[in-house]
Amino acid sequence: MSPIEIENTLKYFLQKLLPHHPISEVYDYATLPGGKLFRPGLVWSILQDLDLDQFQKSLTDKNSPHARLASAVEFHHSYTLIHDDMPCMDNDDMRRGKPSTHKAYGQWQALLAGDGLINISYQLLTHIKHQRSLELMSFFSWALGPKGLIHGQVLDLSQEMTKSFENTIRTHELKTGRLIQVAIVGSSLLTSTTEQIPFKKLWKFSRLLGINFQLLDDLSELSDEQLNEHELSVNPWLIFPEQTYRETLKNLNTFNQLAKELKLVNTNLTINAYYQKMLENFTQKQNVIENHLNKKFDLEPVILLMKSFSKI
Amino acid sequence: MSPIEIENTLKYFLQKLLPHHPISEVYDYATLPGGKLFRPGLVWSILQDLDLDQFQKSLTDKNSPHARLASAVEFHHSYTLIHDDMPCMDNDDMRRGKPSTHKAYGQWQALLAGDGLINISYQLLTHIKHQRSLELMSFFSWALGPKGLIHGQVLDLSQEMTKSFENTIRTHELKTGRLIQVAIVGSSLLTSTTEQIPFKKLWKFSRLLGINFQLLDDLSELSDEQLNEHELSVNPWLIFPEQTYRETLKNLNTFNQLAKELKLVNTNLTINAYYQKMLENFTQKQNVIENHLNKKFDLEPVILLMKSFSKI
Repeated sequence: MSPIEIENTLKYFLQKLLPHHPISEVYDYATLPGGKLFRPGLVWSILQDLDLDQFQKSLTDKNSPHARLASAVEFHHSYTLIHDDMPCMDNDDMRRGKPSTHKAYGQWQALLAGDGLINISYQLLTHIKHQRSLELMSFFSWALGPKGLIHGQVLDLSQEMTKSFENTIRTHELKTGRLIQVAIVGSSLLTSTTEQIPFKKLWKFSRLLGINFQLLDDLSELSDEQLNEHELSVNPWLIFPEQTYRETLKNLNTFNQLAKELKLVNTNLTINAYYQKMLENFTQKQNVIENHLNKKFDLEPVILLMKSFSKI
Repeated sequence: MSPIEIENTLKYFLQKLLPHHPISEVYDYATLPGGKLFRPGLVWSILQDLDLDQFQKSLTDKNSPHARLASAVEFHHSYTLIHDDMPCMDNDDMRRGKPSTHKAYGQWQALLAGDGLINISYQLLTHIKHQRSLELMSFFSWALGPKGLIHGQVLDLSQEMTKSFENTIRTHELKTGRLIQVAIVGSSLLTSTTEQIPFKKLWKFSRLLGINFQLLDDLSELSDEQLNEHELSVNPWLIFPEQTYRETLKNLNTFNQLAKELKLVNTNLTINAYYQKMLENFTQKQNVIENHLNKKFDLEPVILLMKSFSKI
């Protein structure tokens, strides 16, 4: 499914689920245009891999289970960005190249739009007609609630994340990883052919992806020549350089093996598209990044593992 | 079900659904001890009225559908209080006689605990084993989402509420009423004998209760000798005195008739317990309240209608 089609579905649901009131503009602003749309992309590509027939039927049906799940995941992602950007959280003025929601509309508008998006994400799931929809919702609420994504935010904001390397990985698993797991595992729950794919392996695949997604993002941050104080104090590549380097290589390696084994062709394409953008940055700014790492670590093995993924 | 038993169920679920981490204290602080516990009380009394047998079985089962719904409703109520109290919203330093959550623990802790409680409320509903649980969740998310409770908060904070009397009633219906409707109508959905009670009448009953609950609360606020500027500028008894007075009498009257017709004995007792506390305030401070209304309106008819409810 193309980003434009994913965005059109998001628009369709916002139209349906929001009141006819100027405030609805805040939700549109915070959600559209979408960012990478990586998470809804994963929902679709998992379906395409597991059941091509169901995928083709779902493509033209905005109310299909997967259209609803993909949108719920993206709305939930948007809410976390809105709340994370607020002054009492990360205090970020910009998001996706424009003023963050509270900067553009005000704080209570941002807070309520975030709350609204949480409710909308569940509302969409309640409309899914599928025998496993309750199971999906139960998983969704566990993964993204106080023991899941929100606990990751707590570890980050309480600065527990930076107290040990294990805490960093746990934070990445929860804060970034859980939503990616919901996209992948959740999508598989809604296909008729789930039995074909071993649940434990899909769980591990999605967990590793979540963690390496964030570790590569942290690495990518080092392509800026100048880092501010906050960036210097939380980036695991700077505070736990050796462990982070080793973990990233190990993670990428295991992930490549698992990806090969699972043969999720379209899902791998979605992931590869993300890798390609990262790789552009890594190769162009390899020197800057390695300087931040005091030339102690060679980026080449990371780049090679990412490149070898595209050949899977 | 007694307030202590309701609180014990809340404790039980917090224990189950929160991580073992100091942050869980924030959730406990925001939720316990409970306030009036009016909403979970309604969930239980509706069950008691509609199916005594199911009620008695549920009393000893913390995992019964109604125990989960009652807790979900109270957790959702708690989240609205946490977020409403924040500086960017109503900026209230005190709640239930103690510092509000953000005052006691900090703003990001309050924001995340609120987000967490939304997720927990849905998580509890996903665990309800009942043929209508999906329908319940769909109703829950509609009633409390961007078209429901959250739209009420928007009308309040954008000061649209005070622009007309109609807007005031609409705000009360959404911001205060929807959660009361979820408690009453939601509870009825989970009983086996729902057919016995006409849905439309139960809907109207819960809607009127939500509106008069808030109008009486607004009236009760006038028992303070000194009102601050904000209170003076938003209380409908001061800005739309005649319409508010007439609406309250009309609403109470219709509500009494409907309560008589529906014969919800235990639900009426729950409501009456709330009325009695209000009445104490109204009779003791009748003079202060009438002074705020410039002696133009006689409280006696309101008091009489509330008293006559206890005889239903």
